[in-house]
Amino acid sequence: MDYPNDQAPGAPVRDGIPEHGRIPKYYAVKAQIAALLDELTEGEPLPAERELALRYEVARETVRQALRELLLEGRLRRHGRGTVVAGPKLAQPLSLASYTEGVRRQGRRPGRALIGLERFPCPPALAAEIGLERGEPVWHMERVLLADDERVGLESTYVSVARVPRLDAEFDPDSSFYSYVHRLGIEFGSADERIETVLATPREALLIGTPPALPMLLIHRISYDTGGRATERVRTLYRGDRFSFTARLGSDGW
Amino acid sequence: MDYPNDQAPGAPVRDGIPEHGRIPKYYAVKAQIAALLDELTEGEPLPAERELALRYEVARETVRQALRELLLEGRLRRHGRGTVVAGPKLAQPLSLASYTEGVRRQGRRPGRALIGLERFPCPPALAAEIGLERGEPVWHMERVLLADDERVGLESTYVSVARVPRLDAEFDPDSSFYSYVHRLGIEFGSADERIETVLATPREALLIGTPPALPMLLIHRISYDTGGRATERVRTLYRGDRFSFTARLGSDGW
Repeated sequence: MDYPNDQAPGAPVRDGIPEHGRIPKYYAVKAQIAALLDELTEGEPLPAERELALRYEVARETVRQALRELLLEGRLRRHGRGTVVAGPKLAQPLSLASYTEGVRRQGRRPGRALIGLERFPCPPALAAEIGLERGEPVWHMERVLLADDERVGLESTYVSVARVPRLDAEFDPDSSFYSYVHRLGIEFGSADERIETVLATPREALLIGTPPALPMLLIHRISYDTGGRATERVRTLYRGDRFSFTARLGSDGW
Repeated sequence: MDYPNDQAPGAPVRDGIPEHGRIPKYYAVKAQIAALLDELTEGEPLPAERELALRYEVARETVRQALRELLLEGRLRRHGRGTVVAGPKLAQPLSLASYTEGVRRQGRRPGRALIGLERFPCPPALAAEIGLERGEPVWHMERVLLADDERVGLESTYVSVARVPRLDAEFDPDSSFYSYVHRLGIEFGSADERIETVLATPREALLIGTPPALPMLLIHRISYDTGGRATERVRTLYRGDRFSFTARLGSDGW
C-alpha cells in the first residue's frame, strides 16, 4: 500500500483515491484544489473558477462540482460574492454545559436569535419522551444559534409550561436558557444525547443561511434535573461544515 | 406558528418547509414520499419512479432527486435493483467499549474484513498525536466494519509496533483488536474522541459500498492505557445513513 510519509492520520487513506480503477475527474480536481488550500491561509480568496478550469484543463462545471464538495465539507466558505479558505471546524465539547459555555470556551461570542416561542398542548410523541401528560401545555422555543454573529445552528427546546410558567414574559431569548432555569432553582443532573447526520431542509437552510441539503450534525437531547426528572427535550442542528464534537470517555462509562 | 399535533419533537419544524417563499419542487415530492414511507414497513419496496412521477405529476428527474436525498438520509436503501424502506439507524453508544461490543448490544453480529496491514516509519503528525518518536515503526491496519454482513464502516488503526510486535502473525483481523490487546496485558483507561461529518471519498465509497459523497460520521479517537499512555490512534468512518451515536452525560463531565 502506498503510504506517504506526510499523510495525516485523520485524513483519508491514499487521499481517498482507489487502488484500482478510475476516479471521477471532479475528484482529481478536488484533490488538487485541496492541496492548494493547504498552502493558503484562512480567509484568503481562492482563484476564480475560470482560472482553475484553465489550470487543471477541465470544464468549469467540473471545477464547480469540486468546489461544491469542498464547501460542504467546510474547507471553503462563501465570503460576499467570492470563496475563501475556511478555518478549522469548531470543536464543541459534548457535555451537560450549555451551548453558551461551549462556545465561550473556544474564545467565541455566543448569541441566539429568536424564531418563535409558542405554547401548545403536548403531542403524544413528546409526552412519551419527557413524561408529561398528553395535552398538558408545553413551550416550544426555536432559536438560531450564533458564534461571533455567524449563524451556526438552529435549536428547538420543548419544556413543560408548569416548570417555567413565565418563560414568555421573563426570559431574554438572546441569553442562556440554562442560566435562566438555574435562577428558577432547576439544576440539570444528566442528559441523554443522540447524534446523527441529516441534510438541512429548505426551511433550516434559509434560517441558518446554509446551502440547501448541507450535511448537518443533529443532536437530540433529553435533560434530567438532579432529581432524575425529565425536564427538556432539545433538537439542535449544527452546521456540519463548521462544527465537530469532542468527548472524553472513561472506563466507567459516562 | 403552525404546529401540528402529531409533530414528532425529533423531526424538523413544519417538516422543513419555510413559512414564506417557494420551496423547491423536489422537496415537496420528498415530503410526500416521506409521508408514504411512514405507512410502509421496513423492507417493503417503493413504487417505481415512473409511477411516483405520475402520481405527483412531476418529471422523473424530480422524483430521482427526492429519492436521492431519502437514500442519503437512510430513509430508503438499495436492495438488489430496487429501493426499499430502510429500518431505523443503529444507535451505537459512544464509549470505551469496542465496535464489537457496541454492535452486539444492539443484537447485531459484528464482523471485520481486512483491507491492509503494513508497518511503516511513524510520520511526524502521527508521532505528535500518540507520543512516539518520528520514524519509530508503527502498524497501520485498515478494516471494513460489518454488521450482519452489511458493510457499515471503515476503520484505520495506528499502533506502535513496540506495543504489539506480533500483530501481523498473531492477530485474526476478523476479531476484536481490543480483546487481542487485552490478552497482551494492555487495558484502555480512557479515550479522547472527536466526531464530525464528512463526505465519503471515491475510495471509501468503493470499499464500503455506499453512493459516492454520502455524508458519513467520522470519529477520531486516541485511546490511553490505564497508565495514561497514548496507545492507539483510530480513524473510523461510519455510514451516516445507517448510524447514530448515543451518550449519557453526567454533571461531573466525563
